[in-house]
Amino acid sequence: MDDLHARLRAGLPAEALQTDPDVMASYAHDMASFCPAGTPAALVFPRTVEQVQHVMRVATELRVPVVPQGARTGLSGGANATDGCIVLSLVKMDRILEIDPVDRIAVVEPGVVNAVLSRAVDELGLYYPPDPSSWETCTIGGNIGTASGGLCCVKYGVTAEYVLGLDVVLADGRLLSTGRRTAKGVAGYDLTRLFVGSEGSLGIVVKAVLALRPRPPRQLVLAAEFGSAAAACAAVCSIMEAGHTPSLLELMDRTTIRAVNKLANMGLPDTTEALLLCAFDTPDPAADLAAVGELCTAAGAAQVVPAEDAAESELLLKARRLSLTALETVKPATMIDDVCVPRTRLAAMLDGTAAIAEKYGLTIGVCAHAGDGNTHPVVCFDHTDADEARRARESFDAIMALGLELGGTITGEHGVGTLKKEWLARELGPVGVEMQRGIKRTFDPLGILNPGKVF
Amino acid sequence: MDDLHARLRAGLPAEALQTDPDVMASYAHDMASFCPAGTPAALVFPRTVEQVQHVMRVATELRVPVVPQGARTGLSGGANATDGCIVLSLVKMDRILEIDPVDRIAVVEPGVVNAVLSRAVDELGLYYPPDPSSWETCTIGGNIGTASGGLCCVKYGVTAEYVLGLDVVLADGRLLSTGRRTAKGVAGYDLTRLFVGSEGSLGIVVKAVLALRPRPPRQLVLAAEFGSAAAACAAVCSIMEAGHTPSLLELMDRTTIRAVNKLANMGLPDTTEALLLCAFDTPDPAADLAAVGELCTAAGAAQVVPAEDAAESELLLKARRLSLTALETVKPATMIDDVCVPRTRLAAMLDGTAAIAEKYGLTIGVCAHAGDGNTHPVVCFDHTDADEARRARESFDAIMALGLELGGTITGEHGVGTLKKEWLARELGPVGVEMQRGIKRTFDPLGILNPGKVF
Repeated sequence: MDDLHARLRAGLPAEALQTDPDVMASYAHDMASFCPAGTPAALVFPRTVEQVQHVMRVATELRVPVVPQGARTGLSGGANATDGCIVLSLVKMDRILEIDPVDRIAVVEPGVVNAVLSRAVDELGLYYPPDPSSWETCTIGGNIGTASGGLCCVKYGVTAEYVLGLDVVLADGRLLSTGRRTAKGVAGYDLTRLFVGSEGSLGIVVKAVLALRPRPPRQLVLAAEFGSAAAACAAVCSIMEAGHTPSLLELMDRTTIRAVNKLANMGLPDTTEALLLCAFDTPDPAADLAAVGELCTAAGAAQVVPAEDAAESELLLKARRLSLTALETVKPATMIDDVCVPRTRLAAMLDGTAAIAEKYGLTIGVCAHAGDGNTHPVVCFDHTDADEARRARESFDAIMALGLELGGTITGEHGVGTLKKEWLARELGPVGVEMQRGIKRTFDPLGILNPGKVF
Repeated sequence: MDDLHARLRAGLPAEALQTDPDVMASYAHDMASFCPAGTPAALVFPRTVEQVQHVMRVATELRVPVVPQGARTGLSGGANATDGCIVLSLVKMDRILEIDPVDRIAVVEPGVVNAVLSRAVDELGLYYPPDPSSWETCTIGGNIGTASGGLCCVKYGVTAEYVLGLDVVLADGRLLSTGRRTAKGVAGYDLTRLFVGSEGSLGIVVKAVLALRPRPPRQLVLAAEFGSAAAACAAVCSIMEAGHTPSLLELMDRTTIRAVNKLANMGLPDTTEALLLCAFDTPDPAADLAAVGELCTAAGAAQVVPAEDAAESELLLKARRLSLTALETVKPATMIDDVCVPRTRLAAMLDGTAAIAEKYGLTIGVCAHAGDGNTHPVVCFDHTDADEARRARESFDAIMALGLELGGTITGEHGVGTLKKEWLARELGPVGVEMQRGIKRTFDPLGILNPGKVF
């Protein structure tokens, strides 16, 4: 380890290398539950591309694993340390290098916080859509690593659709530029997209060219209360079938609504079985909400409440954004799942999840990016109760099995990390796994980039 | 060759195998100029996935190259035969398997013609945006192979953004499923996107899950005449900077306008230097066009003519769609380039192209997807004049060099094929090429899939 530290020091300023065990331990985890983490051998905070290249050259020479990190808000253990690794935290490479309103691009370093970029482009009348729940703290590099989603995806898509080009430091320290600054481009294989969602297992992103959009009008939100999750899901289907393009279409189940009320006393209707939130950022959102309100009523909504203004809309969104935090107060521990199904199967997914909760004798609250069919069942349990912890883990697996059965995926936006490694093979099948491993070997022949993650 | 034919026949119905030299020769080329083609050893028209698997197993056993083809409307030689190859035409796998208006997906075989799919989804109130100029004849499989664009991209993006999942027959005949039917999904590396634009060099696409959108309102078009290409480009920049999202933003230069008038007698203003076409498919397109008209006037437009209705709009679009055909009548031969630059550099690209035309003593007409910065300089020349043919080729290269200089790409939507192989390395650099070749080896270790293309 002394050799490793000496070699690292040779190409880094003193403040970039941390070897204090307590400090290193505090960087060993992301926010995933029950994903074990190892003990790092070094913690590096590079500020330049050259420093990242130096770290990777040393890692290659000494065959030391490297675990890249953003803000560690991930939920799958993808940023957890492995024993003896170099933790490579990119949070200090946090400069916005360029924002161009004509080309509608931003060029950023990986450590830029999502909210910082969002506000910077907003000031210029532009919009960077991807908005994971952790957007106030998570970094663009982390968003790229996990191909993050958020509330806006039903209209604006996920992070992947906003990454035009990347600079990536490869496992051996060489610098690779992928993609483009242009609106279109098809020169060779799409390596840019390959890195998005690769969870740091193919290279270290050190610069990104991001696509921006014009800032849309402020969105207006409607809330609709339903007597069953199935009725709310039927409303989702009829909204999408009617050709609407909401900027947000979210669902909270009864458990979630109650938890939010308890946490924040927001006066949500906690006797209903499901609450649907729908928003439009169109030129005439009130008209669109009126049309959607009628569809909700036709699907059996007990009450439909359109927000009158931005303030009311914000309040409803705040309830949704608090959902995960609120569910964490139900029991001492939670496991957050991330199963995405075709939206035609959303009702089956919710009913099936309720049946799983009953079978395992657990509380499972569900909030969902309903317009995308992306559910977040949150298993609430007491981790000090061994039997309950076992049932929690089994129910978590049962939820993924159900998702696959319904034609869905085990992860809509959180990634695989260590949490879902065993399940990835079930989703991809043996040929898929073989091809994915082949790509991994091409970029990381020594297997030093975030080993033990994804596969 | 007899052995090859016998082996192929063993797993194919009689009508699926063509060995007549004249028929095979008629399938040796796509629509690229000056890309040499070889002589195929066999021509196969599979109708099922199993038949494609059989062909690939035979090809692997006998180490015979396979050249997959759609409608052969490509412009880079990507579908050209190589000597002794099996030409694998997917045009008879032409079934639309499913269209789901709630999940907003279509599931299709690769031989479905773009226009057939577009019309089928239109009947259900849905929209499949990618609209290459050849949309009446080109196939979805070909569109996926080249990651095709079109006129709609400035608002709706390219083919890649509409491909959610694929079934692919690998070089050895195994079947790989990639991606998903869901709106979101991040399980493992994005293999789907890797196949899009890979020009048949990684596998044979036999099924695709495509994303659809709700059908937008009919678009309304405006034409604006400018005294210089630079002024038209300035208008493009101010339209985009102002936050507009046109559904189309096209430019035709003087040479193109005159050629179209001559071909179709359309009464375009053939004394102007540049014509800009802008369209909106928003709820109030006339209002958006009025705003854009003012920006055009401010940028120096001599005249701004908004279409009054759908018929006038169609007429203007027809002129644009005829551009390439019209330029082909200027001289006996043409070479169509496809350089895409940041839109802030569009004026420099057009002025530079004019300077190249002058330097080489050639006529070069330019039409452009101006909103994307994607130019199609069309070099018009007499191929029977050796010196002029040489100058044509040199000017074509000079245009790509200019595009790279301006921060652009050598191909925005037509692909690399054989036409731009030498230029791909210049754009990607040695590290990029090495990584791309590594991916190629992972999927096609024997190098039998469309060899000699892309790289």
